[in-house]
Amino acid sequence: MTSFFSILHFMKPILYSYFRSSASYRVRIALHLKKIEFEYRPIHLVKDGGEQYKEEYKKLNPMSQVPSLVDGDLTLGESVAIIQYLDSKWHSPPLFPKEPKNWAPILQVCEICNSGIQPYQNVIVLNKLQSDFNANEEQRHSWARFFNERGLNSIERLVSKTAGKYAFGDQVTAADCFIIPQIFSSQRFQVDLKQFHVLSKIYENCNALEAFQKAHPAKQIDAQ
Amino acid sequence: MTSFFSILHFMKPILYSYFRSSASYRVRIALHLKKIEFEYRPIHLVKDGGEQYKEEYKKLNPMSQVPSLVDGDLTLGESVAIIQYLDSKWHSPPLFPKEPKNWAPILQVCEICNSGIQPYQNVIVLNKLQSDFNANEEQRHSWARFFNERGLNSIERLVSKTAGKYAFGDQVTAADCFIIPQIFSSQRFQVDLKQFHVLSKIYENCNALEAFQKAHPAKQIDAQ
Repeated sequence: MTSFFSILHFMKPILYSYFRSSASYRVRIALHLKKIEFEYRPIHLVKDGGEQYKEEYKKLNPMSQVPSLVDGDLTLGESVAIIQYLDSKWHSPPLFPKEPKNWAPILQVCEICNSGIQPYQNVIVLNKLQSDFNANEEQRHSWARFFNERGLNSIERLVSKTAGKYAFGDQVTAADCFIIPQIFSSQRFQVDLKQFHVLSKIYENCNALEAFQKAHPAKQIDAQ
Repeated sequence: MTSFFSILHFMKPILYSYFRSSASYRVRIALHLKKIEFEYRPIHLVKDGGEQYKEEYKKLNPMSQVPSLVDGDLTLGESVAIIQYLDSKWHSPPLFPKEPKNWAPILQVCEICNSGIQPYQNVIVLNKLQSDFNANEEQRHSWARFFNERGLNSIERLVSKTAGKYAFGDQVTAADCFIIPQIFSSQRFQVDLKQFHVLSKIYENCNALEAFQKAHPAKQIDAQ
């Protein structure tokens, strides 16, 4: 029987996520900020050589990465694309302001996390440093720390001109969805957050919000 | 005397670029497609230890990267942010379609280049592989080739469902602005383009267009 409720259920977006993935974490924050009901499907990035490499998952995401979002007949990878898509379909609260000169600097900060920090220190790079160059854990962490500090330094410089309670004024924006997971991730590599005064406050203020708490890696059904 | 023309001149956007930078190349394509007059200011990434590290440039771009765009009182880094900004201000021709379910997959392909390939093989990573792990040129190129082939493989898979003359149908989109510079860059690392049938045709078709020719690294005033 196709009831109203089963259609609603069918229409809930599906998020393929790994609890510890910072890119998944960004999208979870956006979903919770907008109070979008979604189905969480864990993809374990380590177990059995990585579930993301199974052909079934590669059909959803040929890069073999999380997150992926399925919404009706749209299948989407890449957290920036997913968050902009969510923002265009579920308007409230907006994660980007309307004026180009206002949203573009926010997108710049998202991209510093997305392409300027995260790729350099994710599991595929750290594994490849080990396999190609025999890098030990301290060498890998030092590499990851370098790229985290370089990127967070730049963001600190940018948001020191724009921050209120959050990165851009007193409303949460997409920038906060990217900054918080990146800071969380940087802690694994012993980055000292205290050196970033503005980011420290933003981190504290965002983590006081329910949406950020619900999106936290430790709160996911696949957390270990 | 402040004439109408000197105001126009004042208002021309300024692009800080390096001829060989693939991220700069993306933005140059977008500017030429839209026939936006702009001032080209070269930032030499190698000379004197890199002009991008000078404090004057870091004020524009704290990541010390190119491109940066200055448009009136807006200063912007990150090619995705710049291209979305240009597209919102200079509408014709559009680089993204209007419908979210149509533009989001295009943005996904842009991001695979931007965060899924380029960061792994840019000059900062290749230099750091050498300084941290004593990687020789063949090892560095093999690393860069791995990430180029992984990413281009994924894009080939995605665009094989959407391509016409270009990556998404028969109109140039932002995806083409990202794909062409990435393929160009991959050639430095001996990636065999022939393995990607769809991308090979897109590369040929785009490079037949005047905007792509004008944006080519060899055509820039700082080309060597």
